[in-house]
Amino acid sequence: MWGGRFETGPAEIMEEINASIDFDKRLAAQDIRGSLAHAAMLAETGILSREDVGAISDGLKSILAEIEAGTFTFSRALEDIHMNVESRLREIVGPTAGRLHTARSRNDQVATDMRLWVRDTADALDLQLAGLQQALAEKAQAFAGAVMPGFTHLQSAQPVTFGHHCLAYVEMLARDRGRLRDARARLNECPLGAAALAGTSFPIDRAMTAKALGFDRPTANSLDSVSDRDFALETLSAAAICAVHLSRLAEEITLWMTPQFAFIKLSDAFTTGSSIMPQKRNPDAAELVRGKTGRVLGALQGLLVVMKGLPLTYSKDMQEDKEGVFDALQTLSLCIAAMTGMVRDLEPDTKAMKKWAGAGFSTATDLADWLVRVLNLPFRDAHHVTGRLVGAAAKRGVGLEKLTLAEMQEAEPRITQEIFDVLGVEKSVKSRTSYGGTAPANVKRQAKRWLGQLAKEAAARG
Amino acid sequence: MWGGRFETGPAEIMEEINASIDFDKRLAAQDIRGSLAHAAMLAETGILSREDVGAISDGLKSILAEIEAGTFTFSRALEDIHMNVESRLREIVGPTAGRLHTARSRNDQVATDMRLWVRDTADALDLQLAGLQQALAEKAQAFAGAVMPGFTHLQSAQPVTFGHHCLAYVEMLARDRGRLRDARARLNECPLGAAALAGTSFPIDRAMTAKALGFDRPTANSLDSVSDRDFALETLSAAAICAVHLSRLAEEITLWMTPQFAFIKLSDAFTTGSSIMPQKRNPDAAELVRGKTGRVLGALQGLLVVMKGLPLTYSKDMQEDKEGVFDALQTLSLCIAAMTGMVRDLEPDTKAMKKWAGAGFSTATDLADWLVRVLNLPFRDAHHVTGRLVGAAAKRGVGLEKLTLAEMQEAEPRITQEIFDVLGVEKSVKSRTSYGGTAPANVKRQAKRWLGQLAKEAAARG
Amino acid sequence: MWGGRFETGPAEIMEEINASIDFDKRLAAQDIRGSLAHAAMLAETGILSREDVGAISDGLKSILAEIEAGTFTFSRALEDIHMNVESRLREIVGPTAGRLHTARSRNDQVATDMRLWVRDTADALDLQLAGLQQALAEKAQAFAGAVMPGFTHLQSAQPVTFGHHCLAYVEMLARDRGRLRDARARLNECPLGAAALAGTSFPIDRAMTAKALGFDRPTANSLDSVSDRDFALETLSAAAICAVHLSRLAEEITLWMTPQFAFIKLSDAFTTGSSIMPQKRNPDAAELVRGKTGRVLGALQGLLVVMKGLPLTYSKDMQEDKEGVFDALQTLSLCIAAMTGMVRDLEPDTKAMKKWAGAGFSTATDLADWLVRVLNLPFRDAHHVTGRLVGAAAKRGVGLEKLTLAEMQEAEPRITQEIFDVLGVEKSVKSRTSYGGTAPANVKRQAKRWLGQLAKEAAARG
Amino acid sequence: MWGGRFETGPAEIMEEINASIDFDKRLAAQDIRGSLAHAAMLAETGILSREDVGAISDGLKSILAEIEAGTFTFSRALEDIHMNVESRLREIVGPTAGRLHTARSRNDQVATDMRLWVRDTADALDLQLAGLQQALAEKAQAFAGAVMPGFTHLQSAQPVTFGHHCLAYVEMLARDRGRLRDARARLNECPLGAAALAGTSFPIDRAMTAKALGFDRPTANSLDSVSDRDFALETLSAAAICAVHLSRLAEEITLWMTPQFAFIKLSDAFTTGSSIMPQKRNPDAAELVRGKTGRVLGALQGLLVVMKGLPLTYSKDMQEDKEGVFDALQTLSLCIAAMTGMVRDLEPDTKAMKKWAGAGFSTATDLADWLVRVLNLPFRDAHHVTGRLVGAAAKRGVGLEKLTLAEMQEAEPRITQEIFDVLGVEKSVKSRTSYGGTAPANVKRQAKRWLGQLAKEAAARG
Repeated sequence: MWGGRFETGPAEIMEEINASIDFDKRLAAQDIRGSLAHAAMLAETGILSREDVGAISDGLKSILAEIEAGTFTFSRALEDIHMNVESRLREIVGPTAGRLHTARSRNDQVATDMRLWVRDTADALDLQLAGLQQALAEKAQAFAGAVMPGFTHLQSAQPVTFGHHCLAYVEMLARDRGRLRDARARLNECPLGAAALAGTSFPIDRAMTAKALGFDRPTANSLDSVSDRDFALETLSAAAICAVHLSRLAEEITLWMTPQFAFIKLSDAFTTGSSIMPQKRNPDAAELVRGKTGRVLGALQGLLVVMKGLPLTYSKDMQEDKEGVFDALQTLSLCIAAMTGMVRDLEPDTKAMKKWAGAGFSTATDLADWLVRVLNLPFRDAHHVTGRLVGAAAKRGVGLEKLTLAEMQEAEPRITQEIFDVLGVEKSVKSRTSYGGTAPANVKRQAKRWLGQLAKEAAARG
Repeated sequence: MWGGRFETGPAEIMEEINASIDFDKRLAAQDIRGSLAHAAMLAETGILSREDVGAISDGLKSILAEIEAGTFTFSRALEDIHMNVESRLREIVGPTAGRLHTARSRNDQVATDMRLWVRDTADALDLQLAGLQQALAEKAQAFAGAVMPGFTHLQSAQPVTFGHHCLAYVEMLARDRGRLRDARARLNECPLGAAALAGTSFPIDRAMTAKALGFDRPTANSLDSVSDRDFALETLSAAAICAVHLSRLAEEITLWMTPQFAFIKLSDAFTTGSSIMPQKRNPDAAELVRGKTGRVLGALQGLLVVMKGLPLTYSKDMQEDKEGVFDALQTLSLCIAAMTGMVRDLEPDTKAMKKWAGAGFSTATDLADWLVRVLNLPFRDAHHVTGRLVGAAAKRGVGLEKLTLAEMQEAEPRITQEIFDVLGVEKSVKSRTSYGGTAPANVKRQAKRWLGQLAKEAAARG
Repeated sequence: MWGGRFETGPAEIMEEINASIDFDKRLAAQDIRGSLAHAAMLAETGILSREDVGAISDGLKSILAEIEAGTFTFSRALEDIHMNVESRLREIVGPTAGRLHTARSRNDQVATDMRLWVRDTADALDLQLAGLQQALAEKAQAFAGAVMPGFTHLQSAQPVTFGHHCLAYVEMLARDRGRLRDARARLNECPLGAAALAGTSFPIDRAMTAKALGFDRPTANSLDSVSDRDFALETLSAAAICAVHLSRLAEEITLWMTPQFAFIKLSDAFTTGSSIMPQKRNPDAAELVRGKTGRVLGALQGLLVVMKGLPLTYSKDMQEDKEGVFDALQTLSLCIAAMTGMVRDLEPDTKAMKKWAGAGFSTATDLADWLVRVLNLPFRDAHHVTGRLVGAAAKRGVGLEKLTLAEMQEAEPRITQEIFDVLGVEKSVKSRTSYGGTAPANVKRQAKRWLGQLAKEAAARG
Repeated sequence: MWGGRFETGPAEIMEEINASIDFDKRLAAQDIRGSLAHAAMLAETGILSREDVGAISDGLKSILAEIEAGTFTFSRALEDIHMNVESRLREIVGPTAGRLHTARSRNDQVATDMRLWVRDTADALDLQLAGLQQALAEKAQAFAGAVMPGFTHLQSAQPVTFGHHCLAYVEMLARDRGRLRDARARLNECPLGAAALAGTSFPIDRAMTAKALGFDRPTANSLDSVSDRDFALETLSAAAICAVHLSRLAEEITLWMTPQFAFIKLSDAFTTGSSIMPQKRNPDAAELVRGKTGRVLGALQGLLVVMKGLPLTYSKDMQEDKEGVFDALQTLSLCIAAMTGMVRDLEPDTKAMKKWAGAGFSTATDLADWLVRVLNLPFRDAHHVTGRLVGAAAKRGVGLEKLTLAEMQEAEPRITQEIFDVLGVEKSVKSRTSYGGTAPANVKRQAKRWLGQLAKEAAARG
């Protein structure tokens, strides 16, 4: 494969560790797209003749057809997707095939292929995330006023609404999409034409290939072009943070599905049973989404480790960029799909949620705020008075609203009957009207804003 | 501290594991900045009286002065920076201090503090990176035409110039800066006013505090506001990728400093000796920059692990966001500073570089390209012919340029004397004129472009 | 510091990145212990005179006293603990101090110091873990028969006992202790005498220093001795797995403390309140134990990254072994202490546990097993029959035990009244008598076995 | 599959995320081994009839034959290996197949399968590592006296021998093997019989199945049995440390193969060429071994993340234990094989090594030691004198041995002609006779010791 200098072939173990065709065949479409753009440019600039390029292009298209049809035979001895394609091209068009590699190298070729793949995948993930946002925003609209306990430390803190909770995830996913888009914008430069590492003496037109492949511009430094894998690292980072977000919702679904919480139900379509316990109804998909975070984090860490301390330019270590990226981004895609399914599928038990929303003295802050607002107590003092009232109620085993006015006044004599108005959970959530707060009117407004924005996006996509 | 409900204090071990003041005192300036903005807003909206807020603000300012002067006594029993400040405020202004915590919670307060700290630090890192770019671009300009071997697989591949090599890092750092800026833009929303998690019933003006603190807008969802640490994760991701870039340059400096390579010299200011071997001159700073990558990667991984699977909203686990972020970003800052010092300090040995640039048949590609260009051989065949010539030269133990024309013609009869023109390393680099290629004229142009841009940036900063 | 070859001092940034005294001063005791052993050996072998070694030893002891008394002044210009000690020694004993470094180097010295520190710490962790096992085994004994729901997928699966649950953690901790001990046994070889990397020509007695420092033997290869950090990596691995175990119990404590589960109570000593919500009682310590796992995992990952790809022997990157190891092992120590406190502090609410143990058709497997045992149904068919019965009960909103015999017989006609005997949770746990099963008698036996073993261990320690 | 309670099937995405058959089919042999042992025990204890068990066992054996022959059809709808096997068993032996799952669950079944797989793999890795030790020890014996530069900070430090360098890795691998064996010993307990999580009421004999499967004993706590993945984490930790060792040797091979170092040659069997540069001879296998470290570290981190914070007992997240473990351990196996091939293949260029061994004033420590030994200078003063001599030689651009006696005496008047005896590299290595030092006689002794031990081991394996 690499010409006349080698006298014997590779050791068997060498071939085994070295060959990448088992996984880089996934880049076939990108590889051929890149070769077609390169060939067209070679013709346009007169480096190759139009006839040669015509033959090469036809050959490449028929190879793509073979691959898509599943009739292409990949060979491990040919090491990678580039050599597999070129070898088949030689079978089809003869020695002319050998002209395609003019003014390029596998180093810039694979960098181009990977950027195209990551770009395509980032776009697809962005679209999927929009779908999950849509599902969440719809739930938020439907349950904008459904009261549930808001937690800190997994302890009841203050009542919030289920819709508000759903919208928190819409915000997270918006940031995830922003990160994916920023990564995409940054990666969208074309390394093709950097050749092995130094550029080339052929009069190529890099702007032309960049444009043909949908890149914003060619990369500016040939050494950087072939030794950079930032685009993979940055996309994996965005994926890792997104996976963490999904893991949090997955944890909540798992919690909410316990008989103890029982905040939601998932249908048969999203639960599984047990091989031994006939009653089980397990939220496997949520657990898997949570668990698969480990794999995405591992892939990010793995590639950071690969790149750490590598001298310029291309080192073979960098072949390790592929499997982890493929696996992590497809895992994320699977997780988003599963999560979207679960969000659409889940039914909140609004009664159970409301019951728990009132437990645990969740309106104690409302009481304290009343003391501040009405009696003009410094908040710290109001907090202290309320703490004593909670203690009293806890001792009696009742909620704050069950204390008598007299009991209230023991802690603070100026308390009036009016206090009981702020102790209901519905009242409480309605009062949280500060921007971003959980008041149902706020939640409806935000849900509407998001649904409008998503619709506009969808319309723009056509 | 938390009012009347608790009867006994914490266990000693509880205080030890729980208290964060040892590290979050670093947020003192941010905490007080946030409190001043909050207090001003409480006055403006009439929630507190102007007198109270005046007293509170004066008190806060004097506390900041105490902290800056080093006369403030931090107390572990007061747990964190927020309570330490509030407690001291009470000593200064009396019970009025208790009014400051109206309509806020430590949850939104600490989220605000951390965003401010990360924002400040990201800005500082961006500036430092500009300084490192400047140092590299100046070296690039000075050595735009200094030939050195370009490596792939750490084997001589093709000649490039030292300036071109420096500019590869300028490109990497530009992406690093882009990531930091994108992270900064995304984090620049103000959580203050989300209160504990649900918003508040006080008629606060979140836009006002956001603006006062230099944020673009308030956050849109109160639950997300207190449970989000994306801004830390994203900044750590950007830092990790940047650390990987620095580690690559550090690896190269370590290599170049070996007697075997001897491409550069570092002065006494950036080398150290040995306690036992009197002759040693070790590139410790480069090794430390390379090694400290581990710490930055560990911090990113650590925080991803912390956040994974956490239900909303605030959980105490999230206190673990601080030390790792502080350490990782300051480590990165230290590494950039050390690297900038080394780049300014290092002297390339252009003779040694040039000698090695020609070794290892590094112009074989030039020969192959000549066969394509002049004899119209398909590249693959040209590659094969060249391979045989390299084999012949290797057998004789000489460079390609030492083969006779007759020897050349044995491999390909149409080769002419003209071939010897492309075998010199200076010739080779000059020929790489494709956009982004290593031709000295290209390198000069790029270095000038970068220096111009950096100057413009600096001017804009004033 | 390193003799006559250097003409100018280090750059300021160089000193800042290079100096390790801020953290390696923690090795002072180990460093002096090692120096004392080295000096004694130099005297014994006649390499130094007894007078010189006497003076050196006295000097070292008085330095240790100064450090312990806090009167020692550490200097950053002296870089590290070794040079700080040697420099002070010179002040005390004059030029003779310069003889101590005969036949050793900082490379073998620091490797020895770190091994001693890690060994001491591993021993301390082992003891702490025994304490946590003791606390758990005592709870197990006290609650050997207290029925609670056993979970898979966080869904009620089958009833188990709280004691059985506690003992699961005793098993995990036993493996953790085993790992720490194996790591300790493997690290217990003395690198002192490997000198810089090659050994020495002085007639030293490495067996003597090894013995004096409590090592089993000297290391066998000098290059490996100074370039190895396996002992740190292995101990961090053991710590990481242990931290994961603690995080699981911490997660359970957090869950059990929710009002929804309410399986346990923690006292004021192990809960905290809120700055805004007066009713809160947060299990902060459990959350922190869970969260601090991230830090331990990050440290492991960080050091693996540091060591990856380092050529032999010592590289300055390896200075990064210290802070992560110090922090991770002390974090683990803190977590074990906090967890031991919580386990001792927590009170199970056996009523609540028992109530939930029976919910969710948790004895369905008992029913299926009855069908196998008594009616000789293949398990798979029994599972199916039970599934239908669970479906029927769920539709009626009752437990299995509330179905009538007639309803039972609709699914399988041969079912008799006897079936109701296996549906009680107490009955269920009592029946699980297979080795390792949850039957209270089993649990008592295992708890007793563990308490006996721990007592024996304690007795052996004296 | 899970009986009568479910009314509709899983969503498509649910099946996609949930099914594990694509990867857990790799456990087929272990799964059937476990089922055979379980069935035999059910017969022996009278829980099933001998006829039923006979039929079941025959069926299982024929299924194994089908799988080995590649004629078995795996179905994703049947989710996992357990259900695929049981379903096929039902086709072969009818409803009796349903009796096999008596007194067990997929939870203990998969835990058993994985332990068996990890145990088998750990044994195989141990054997492979012995092979790599053998290759290294043989090189060590052959090159026990071949002088090369010993490096610290990748700077020439002191001369050592290539054999000594090889033996450093033999020591590292010995520790790796120790860790694998400790992990194996700790995992060698049988979870079978823990059933779903609580044990069983059937009178099973767990000791019998444990023994039949080669385990030392059954596990002691049923909850721990099904929720523990320590055995995977510990084996991954051992693998990660081993991968780091291999990465260090791989880094060195890559360095040594550069034209600048040129310490070794690799044959065509272990190098590859370039698609564009005809002269290239790249050490791809070494780079891949170095790069694949990232993947192993990622897998360890990934599984630690999965397990972190999981409540007991089995959660579906734990299905993520498989792919990472499979991939990481097989990657390690591939890396060991490739490294063994490279070590056998590589030829040291002893001339080049020796030339460099003397460069860089590498015998300066010998000079300093002479000053101590002969002139009784304190080492610190000797170090200083030597530093000045190195400075003088460096200024003249010569080695220490080229200084005149007069020049020497300028730095220290008592120096005599005898000093020149210690400045040769052969002399230097011969003098390092301290235990573990690089003296050729030492190296030969250690190589012999290792080869003897490996031969004894091999003999013991028969």
